[in-house]
Amino acid sequence: MITAHDLAARLKDLEPIGLGPSGTTRLAWTPEDAAARRWFERQAVAGGLRAERDPAGNLWAVPGAPGPWWGVGSHLDSVRSGGRHDGALGVAAAFEVAARAGVPLAVISFADEEGARFNTPTFGSRALVGRLDVDDALGRVDDDGVTMADALTAAGVDPAGLPAAPRRLALLRGFVELHIDQTRDLARAGVPAGVVGALASRMRVEVELTGRADHAGTTRRNERRDALAAAARLIVRADELAGGDPEFVVTATRLLVEPGALTTIPSHVALWIDARAPAPSTVEQWRAGLDRVAQELARATGVAIEVRTSAQSAGVAFDPAIRSRLSAACADLGSAGAELVCFAGHDAGVLAERLPAGMAFVRNATGVSHAPDEQVALEDAAVAAEAMLRALEELAA
Amino acid sequence: MITAHDLAARLKDLEPIGLGPSGTTRLAWTPEDAAARRWFERQAVAGGLRAERDPAGNLWAVPGAPGPWWGVGSHLDSVRSGGRHDGALGVAAAFEVAARAGVPLAVISFADEEGARFNTPTFGSRALVGRLDVDDALGRVDDDGVTMADALTAAGVDPAGLPAAPRRLALLRGFVELHIDQTRDLARAGVPAGVVGALASRMRVEVELTGRADHAGTTRRNERRDALAAAARLIVRADELAGGDPEFVVTATRLLVEPGALTTIPSHVALWIDARAPAPSTVEQWRAGLDRVAQELARATGVAIEVRTSAQSAGVAFDPAIRSRLSAACADLGSAGAELVCFAGHDAGVLAERLPAGMAFVRNATGVSHAPDEQVALEDAAVAAEAMLRALEELAA
Repeated sequence: MITAHDLAARLKDLEPIGLGPSGTTRLAWTPEDAAARRWFERQAVAGGLRAERDPAGNLWAVPGAPGPWWGVGSHLDSVRSGGRHDGALGVAAAFEVAARAGVPLAVISFADEEGARFNTPTFGSRALVGRLDVDDALGRVDDDGVTMADALTAAGVDPAGLPAAPRRLALLRGFVELHIDQTRDLARAGVPAGVVGALASRMRVEVELTGRADHAGTTRRNERRDALAAAARLIVRADELAGGDPEFVVTATRLLVEPGALTTIPSHVALWIDARAPAPSTVEQWRAGLDRVAQELARATGVAIEVRTSAQSAGVAFDPAIRSRLSAACADLGSAGAELVCFAGHDAGVLAERLPAGMAFVRNATGVSHAPDEQVALEDAAVAAEAMLRALEELAA
Repeated sequence: MITAHDLAARLKDLEPIGLGPSGTTRLAWTPEDAAARRWFERQAVAGGLRAERDPAGNLWAVPGAPGPWWGVGSHLDSVRSGGRHDGALGVAAAFEVAARAGVPLAVISFADEEGARFNTPTFGSRALVGRLDVDDALGRVDDDGVTMADALTAAGVDPAGLPAAPRRLALLRGFVELHIDQTRDLARAGVPAGVVGALASRMRVEVELTGRADHAGTTRRNERRDALAAAARLIVRADELAGGDPEFVVTATRLLVEPGALTTIPSHVALWIDARAPAPSTVEQWRAGLDRVAQELARATGVAIEVRTSAQSAGVAFDPAIRSRLSAACADLGSAGAELVCFAGHDAGVLAERLPAGMAFVRNATGVSHAPDEQVALEDAAVAAEAMLRALEELAA
């Protein structure tokens, strides 16, 4: 049986990397990311696995037996000021599972899962399945003005090699990921571990509002084109469009105002909105409504409003065979419960488009993620890892 | 008669300083500010005046005759990406007026009128009248983390000397400022120049909203504490509190979101709101309403909301004798019209608390200010300057 102690030993040298007073910050292609990658290589070598890097910068720890193998893993990057177990726990557990499995398994850490630096979530897994818009991704710029192409090059990944990443997919029979629950669902159910049935439909929208910079005191009400006033109304309306549906969440996550001078009417706002619901049609209808609202507001305020969909996922159902084996193993370990719908994106969800894939979740007492307040007991993680081990041994047999 | 040509000649070497593709940026205590100050000194010397700097860093060009003198001037600093004539035109015109006047006049350029760098508007004039909270101002920090104390020191102004600035006030009998109209009032009236009767009441409010950083997808609607969602509602309500009164303007000018990650619910927002109306009671009532709205929103959203008044002016009526002489001179020059109420703050408004003060405005075709779209003809400015010259000669006689 995998224990909390086993997982703690694996996490010991990983957790301090990027950990500060406001949480864990391990953005992709940074020195912190590189340090986590060195941890991965040490884990591989210690486990008798061969560390490899694919053309997208995903890390693989592969067995001596020839592929294709079942894969197990997660990601090592984080958001800014994130939690310590989001992603990292899944990679640590994967090494423990691979070490104990009676079948050859490949451990994978996908690159830039969070996409927090370049707005490129699940970068590595999308590159692997051939669903990455390579030119678009390479041209993206971080807050310091660095392009992704330059960041990849600096991290030793050749941008020109990215289109070749999908060739590597043939080495995988399927993929299973362990991750912390990002809700209180498992905590409410009173079980340490659970199985994800499906990922919800997701959309990320970028809005540009262009008004005019006038004096905040002397410009008459009817002569204003206030980009921030329009953005505030759009944020309120974007949420109202969800109609209070408890399963439908809309979040304005980021907003930049120009010029930001204390006596000047804002001339420009860039705004990012994230929307998620179980069914793709719900999100599509919301998006159409957002266009209508933007047009109404533009007419009413004189502010030009451009709305673009910058990322979208229709949602995905995980592989039935993986789900049933994970559920049975959880039940055997005293963690029986209903399958979960997950509102976050995951590499396993991207791979599910091309391969059998599945996910096991670990109870999170606070339900908080992407923040240091996540609260996960390694005893619970050990149950999920053990269930994953048992399921993979059956699947690979 | 003062002509457009006279003013153009004075502005020629001043206008290029800090001028870029997006307008004029000449923040206080920067190299651009220093270059403008050197222009001031050259103008003084060329006009036979003595250039002096008071303990607040205000520039004076004083005549040989002993004080007290009537003062005339404006400011040389700008907002970020501001207009070329806001402030600068008033200083250039002041040199022309002083050169032609049959009475001794002091030309003054007040330091940091815009307050765009440290949120310290009318810094220099407030220091001169003894109404500056010196400790508060010195501790303020710009966007690069530089304190005002350090910025002053680097610019050669001793922070310890600031409290002595009011001693200098005894050298002034009164003050008149020429400035561009920051509305289309004069353009609509079809006159080149006009007289300001009063400054409106103004208030600047800072709001801090503190929520919790959770995952934007997985956090249920009723478990969220979204600081940006609350801020958007507050911005909408703050404007609604003005009740559509065309004379009452409310502007959210600046907003900073943390953490600003694309899949994280915003945990913190800092927001600045500017409110102006002719009567102080209007602004006071609005402020009380804002507190009520903040409390309601805090209860409804779980976001802590702290509202602080960071700057306030009850408004001011200018000196009747100055107004009547300026009005008569304007009428003699073919620019008769009603007095204006000004919704911006000005150094003349600060001085009006202690001295006879007044203002002449120059027509602005667009009504835009604090942006490069301001549109002022030097022919119009020459009319305002000539009116100011005639009024000052009578006042000083």
